[in-house]
Amino acid sequence: MLISCVAYQNGEKLADIEPKQIHEYLARPDCFVWVALFEPDAGTLELMQAEFDLHPLAVEDARHGHQRPKIEEYGDCLFVVLHMVEPAAGELRVGEVDVFVGRNYILSVRSGVEKGFRDVRARCEHEPQLLRRGPGYVLYALMDAVVDRYFPILQTVEADLERIEEGLFAETSPRQNIEALYALKQRLMVFRHAVGPLLEALGNLSGARVPAVCSGMREYFRDISDHLQRLNQTIESIRDTVSTAISVNLSMITLQESETMKRLAAYAALIAVPTLIVGVYGMNFDYMPELRWRHGYALCWGLMVAIDGYIFYRLRKARWL
Amino acid sequence: MLISCVAYQNGEKLADIEPKQIHEYLARPDCFVWVALFEPDAGTLELMQAEFDLHPLAVEDARHGHQRPKIEEYGDCLFVVLHMVEPAAGELRVGEVDVFVGRNYILSVRSGVEKGFRDVRARCEHEPQLLRRGPGYVLYALMDAVVDRYFPILQTVEADLERIEEGLFAETSPRQNIEALYALKQRLMVFRHAVGPLLEALGNLSGARVPAVCSGMREYFRDISDHLQRLNQTIESIRDTVSTAISVNLSMITLQESETMKRLAAYAALIAVPTLIVGVYGMNFDYMPELRWRHGYALCWGLMVAIDGYIFYRLRKARWL
Amino acid sequence: MLISCVAYQNGEKLADIEPKQIHEYLARPDCFVWVALFEPDAGTLELMQAEFDLHPLAVEDARHGHQRPKIEEYGDCLFVVLHMVEPAAGELRVGEVDVFVGRNYILSVRSGVEKGFRDVRARCEHEPQLLRRGPGYVLYALMDAVVDRYFPILQTVEADLERIEEGLFAETSPRQNIEALYALKQRLMVFRHAVGPLLEALGNLSGARVPAVCSGMREYFRDISDHLQRLNQTIESIRDTVSTAISVNLSMITLQESETMKRLAAYAALIAVPTLIVGVYGMNFDYMPELRWRHGYALCWGLMVAIDGYIFYRLRKARWL
Amino acid sequence: MLISCVAYQNGEKLADIEPKQIHEYLARPDCFVWVALFEPDAGTLELMQAEFDLHPLAVEDARHGHQRPKIEEYGDCLFVVLHMVEPAAGELRVGEVDVFVGRNYILSVRSGVEKGFRDVRARCEHEPQLLRRGPGYVLYALMDAVVDRYFPILQTVEADLERIEEGLFAETSPRQNIEALYALKQRLMVFRHAVGPLLEALGNLSGARVPAVCSGMREYFRDISDHLQRLNQTIESIRDTVSTAISVNLSMITLQESETMKRLAAYAALIAVPTLIVGVYGMNFDYMPELRWRHGYALCWGLMVAIDGYIFYRLRKARWL
Amino acid sequence: MLISCVAYQNGEKLADIEPKQIHEYLARPDCFVWVALFEPDAGTLELMQAEFDLHPLAVEDARHGHQRPKIEEYGDCLFVVLHMVEPAAGELRVGEVDVFVGRNYILSVRSGVEKGFRDVRARCEHEPQLLRRGPGYVLYALMDAVVDRYFPILQTVEADLERIEEGLFAETSPRQNIEALYALKQRLMVFRHAVGPLLEALGNLSGARVPAVCSGMREYFRDISDHLQRLNQTIESIRDTVSTAISVNLSMITLQESETMKRLAAYAALIAVPTLIVGVYGMNFDYMPELRWRHGYALCWGLMVAIDGYIFYRLRKARWL
Repeated sequence: MLISCVAYQNGEKLADIEPKQIHEYLARPDCFVWVALFEPDAGTLELMQAEFDLHPLAVEDARHGHQRPKIEEYGDCLFVVLHMVEPAAGELRVGEVDVFVGRNYILSVRSGVEKGFRDVRARCEHEPQLLRRGPGYVLYALMDAVVDRYFPILQTVEADLERIEEGLFAETSPRQNIEALYALKQRLMVFRHAVGPLLEALGNLSGARVPAVCSGMREYFRDISDHLQRLNQTIESIRDTVSTAISVNLSMITLQESETMKRLAAYAALIAVPTLIVGVYGMNFDYMPELRWRHGYALCWGLMVAIDGYIFYRLRKARWL
Repeated sequence: MLISCVAYQNGEKLADIEPKQIHEYLARPDCFVWVALFEPDAGTLELMQAEFDLHPLAVEDARHGHQRPKIEEYGDCLFVVLHMVEPAAGELRVGEVDVFVGRNYILSVRSGVEKGFRDVRARCEHEPQLLRRGPGYVLYALMDAVVDRYFPILQTVEADLERIEEGLFAETSPRQNIEALYALKQRLMVFRHAVGPLLEALGNLSGARVPAVCSGMREYFRDISDHLQRLNQTIESIRDTVSTAISVNLSMITLQESETMKRLAAYAALIAVPTLIVGVYGMNFDYMPELRWRHGYALCWGLMVAIDGYIFYRLRKARWL
Repeated sequence: MLISCVAYQNGEKLADIEPKQIHEYLARPDCFVWVALFEPDAGTLELMQAEFDLHPLAVEDARHGHQRPKIEEYGDCLFVVLHMVEPAAGELRVGEVDVFVGRNYILSVRSGVEKGFRDVRARCEHEPQLLRRGPGYVLYALMDAVVDRYFPILQTVEADLERIEEGLFAETSPRQNIEALYALKQRLMVFRHAVGPLLEALGNLSGARVPAVCSGMREYFRDISDHLQRLNQTIESIRDTVSTAISVNLSMITLQESETMKRLAAYAALIAVPTLIVGVYGMNFDYMPELRWRHGYALCWGLMVAIDGYIFYRLRKARWL
Repeated sequence: MLISCVAYQNGEKLADIEPKQIHEYLARPDCFVWVALFEPDAGTLELMQAEFDLHPLAVEDARHGHQRPKIEEYGDCLFVVLHMVEPAAGELRVGEVDVFVGRNYILSVRSGVEKGFRDVRARCEHEPQLLRRGPGYVLYALMDAVVDRYFPILQTVEADLERIEEGLFAETSPRQNIEALYALKQRLMVFRHAVGPLLEALGNLSGARVPAVCSGMREYFRDISDHLQRLNQTIESIRDTVSTAISVNLSMITLQESETMKRLAAYAALIAVPTLIVGVYGMNFDYMPELRWRHGYALCWGLMVAIDGYIFYRLRKARWL
Repeated sequence: MLISCVAYQNGEKLADIEPKQIHEYLARPDCFVWVALFEPDAGTLELMQAEFDLHPLAVEDARHGHQRPKIEEYGDCLFVVLHMVEPAAGELRVGEVDVFVGRNYILSVRSGVEKGFRDVRARCEHEPQLLRRGPGYVLYALMDAVVDRYFPILQTVEADLERIEEGLFAETSPRQNIEALYALKQRLMVFRHAVGPLLEALGNLSGARVPAVCSGMREYFRDISDHLQRLNQTIESIRDTVSTAISVNLSMITLQESETMKRLAAYAALIAVPTLIVGVYGMNFDYMPELRWRHGYALCWGLMVAIDGYIFYRLRKARWL
């Protein structure tokens, strides 16, 4: 689906154009074309490949989707793959945006997520002095938008972790804790796959030789790289904490088992000792003087209560009860 | 076993030729020879070594098999070892294909797996404009085919993992879970050994100095490298998940043990308390007024039922039952 | 909030100046301006950006805060972010100081922590021969102060760990131990985020090409780097020890459970055996000679005491009691 | 002990010579001397040092032994340390061979293992066209022999691991399993210490600058490096599997404990319930109608059998029995 | 405290000199001064700083102590920090020696340990041909002595580990084992902090550019590096083994718990079954024929013994007893 196809000159919007006119505008000096597609059909992609003269391997990647985040050079053209993450019904939905950037064009192909880049285009069009820098700046704006959208979603993951941590040392729900930790680790993996490869690719980008498209934009791409490193650090911290929390959870389960066992044993003692005593006075010896006593029975009760009271006192002191 | 031995010129098939004629065709300009062998005997390998003038160390590797995936240069000749993976009776069968590539020849030696490269040859012959690029392109096509065949098999591993995960928090079968996780980790190792070293070797290949055979094919080999990186990322994710799942499984076992113990203790309490009571009234004291009561026995039953009812209510509230 | 704004010449304080005069002083040769801000409002930051001609991306970072420690070059200007750590009510409060350093100015923007850099300014002003080196030396002095303040706080973490270790093999409080270890690991993460990225950034700084501002100061920055490496080593040691302590704690819990079980079983045996004996003499067989003996009852008691004594002796010898 | 001392010319054996004659032969062009020692005394080593003009630090290393595998250059002389591994009474015996290689000599000093290099010398003497390459080729042949001897021994370790794995999920012998895994990990360490440092040293060797002795032999040393990488991969796989197996073993132990507990509890229930019933009818109430029934006793037995039958049926269905 | 202050010329001791004369001797050609201090006061250090013209940052490090091992260049002067390890009352005492080396002087500042470098000086003075090489050789001799003293102490750690391993699979003392393993890991950390940073620093030293003081001594410093790598390998092996031993210990504890539980259950069964039987014959049914039998009581005993015998036989066969 074609979202928009616009030609720009000197940082100003020139016109909404037809896809078939693209090559005409590419021929004009100081003019660049910015096309946004959403889950395009094969025909549209082929048209774009022809108009922009894109490398077949890159187009094939965009058609199939499910790529890792990456930044590849095909001659003068830069092919960038970004993951987009959207919360959806308690889970995380992962989409993809594939960006082709050349000297005088930028083409974004989005799929799998709802939120587009309308706001990015609006912001760019309001800052003509920056948009004048051309497709390299638009690439920066797109990447910046994608990366900045990671932050609030990762913060919900952090918040979930804090909620789990609060329950970790409470005795309430070890089962829920461990299920939640496991699920959280899976959700975190989505971010690792989005952030890690991109950070690596950007590291290569801002290295010695910078592609022509991005020349003079070093500080901007370093800024994205810096955001990714902050995300990465947060991800690693969460990961580390989750691992520790899982093993702490096991310790807590074992500890509770141990404490439960003690409490059970305490109650067992409170029952077993009187059981022995009543057994004694259930014996049938001919000569058992206590049985003949007037208050034997009452004394027996007294004995049982006294012993249990003592046991109870001792166990309470030892914190078994 | 000789599968096929064909000479190509300008991207077109020239003729099926005899192995002994190979050196004649190698002498012609613009002509290259593509030979495919399957588990060849010593004689065939020696003939090939003579016809193509292969390095003895590389031929020895091909004869013995069981190599790691690798890409080695012997002068102008490139020696490539790839692992092939085939599902076989619930397990994974690992085969090997050793490829010798020179300026005007390519020789593949397959062993251990059934599926060959008939489809690769067919596709190449249908694209003469690409086949014209010579043995370097054929090498790419072979490697691409081998790597692409990993994907569906790794997906079955992923599917198995998801099935295990579903049972992880159910109380049904911890023993099966852990056996399945262990087996899955072993199966994963097959992929790590196939993918990891090849990715590393390709990294060296696409580095500074590119072997003559692959010149002008950089984007193609980078594409394979990219596929391998996706595989690698999937493998690492599964590995990480399996490790977590194993420790979660231990937590679940301990947790279930703990819960079982509580349930057992609950039932024990339901039996032990009445046992104490009946013991009391089994005592032989001369003076035990309850024993003389008309409804003593019935009251005793009532007492036992009441106490057990109360205990049951308390334990149910505490979720021990 | 403006803390101070001072111009220096030849290592001597020239005058407290108004922010709006800054550009005048920057124009003088051999003169540099040192401004300190605390949680400035937007207007102040904009004024500074205008006076010092700071890069918008760096100013944006300073405005938003919550950056990772880093050292970035924007043309001739160095932008440095440092974390500051302050103990606050048993927890650690993390603040930030962002430093802009140019050829003839240094601007520090502190936020989140109370303690400022009054002492650093005082020390610098007492050493004119060093202050004469200009903003590069002031940057060193600020970084040195920030890093040196980490040491005593990290030492309290170490002391806490030692306290926990002492309780690790005592049977008293496994629950507190594990809670304390978990909390300590979280506190340690604050330091890792403060120290790790800064160490990495300094490594790049003292590498091949040194920014103009820091030229001739290599030994000084290497000294900070060395302090950071000591901190880093301590952090890694604590981390490693905490991990080991957590798993040792689990072992201790399991071990105590095991020992508790043995003690319980021992007591159970001391009760169960006499219970069986009294059961025997509670049987109603017509012919049970012991029941008729004159001292049957006494002998029965003797038997029970003797058996329990023997069991007690055996269990004590086996260290179950 | 001197094993042999031979001079070679043009790949042919010239003569067995006396150690004291060595310097004479070294003076001849196209001639090289190959000396093999086994646990030599101090005098022999000193003689060799004098004849070959060896560096004192290297000779000291050879005298003391217990070095890590390494490849060091002392001027024109290469000093190579290799570990040799021999199975000995269920354990692994580690020996060492120290090789000094110069332009026209090679000296090997073996210690700690029985098997020497007679076969290597024989093979070299049968291939004069290779032996003509001089000491560099002999070094390759020695290293190749040492490395190839690792394979069968490592395979026995792999076989042992497979045997343990088979018993891992059987309930028979968790104690033997864990002892065997621990012992296996220790045995593996021997290989890690033999293979890892050597692989690293070879990586440096085949890097940019190749020592004069090995010039023109790059493919051969790369071949050894490849063998070492295969060994290394196997070692890492086993290591990883052993770690997983140890934690799986812990899970299996806990699981069996849990299952044992259930079975015990089942039996306990089968005894406790009838015990309660017989207690009921041991009570001494005056009015207990069942006690007067003609078939009271038989009914009581019937009740107990019925209840136990029902409990048994339920527990069997729940797989506790 | 000044230990000694000696001037050397051409490898021969010239004279014991006064600290205040140092600068005179430094002025002489071919002469160098070797000063050894032990925990010097501030005045002595200041004197040294003045006489040798040492960098203030390095002197400050030496004054404060507690540095990481490192090798730093301050202009022509090399500043080396080494850790010294001494066994002291079952623990390890860590001291430090800081060495300043220049073109014609070497100054060592030792603190925290008792053993000095008298033997090093003696050995150097006995080898004038080596001592002639100047301060670089003395530095080597000092470092070599420090590193060589690590070996016997680390061997006692290894011996301790072996002693623990022997007890690991015995059932005697899991508590002592785990305490010992924990303590051993702490002791190991001392070595890691001594060896790791020094190895890294030496790696930089023997890299591309060698400080003037050490020129021509490459083989010697590589030899130290090699010793450190051996130590490092041993440390890593012990670390790895300790980690495995800790988790094996947990398995053993769990396993023993499991086995104890089985034995307890076995004894419980031996008591519970007769208890049920005696309960049966304690019932008060009017019609219980066994009670009237002449040998009822004896038969009852026989029954109990027979059943317990059978249970005992079965449990012994199942290895529960």
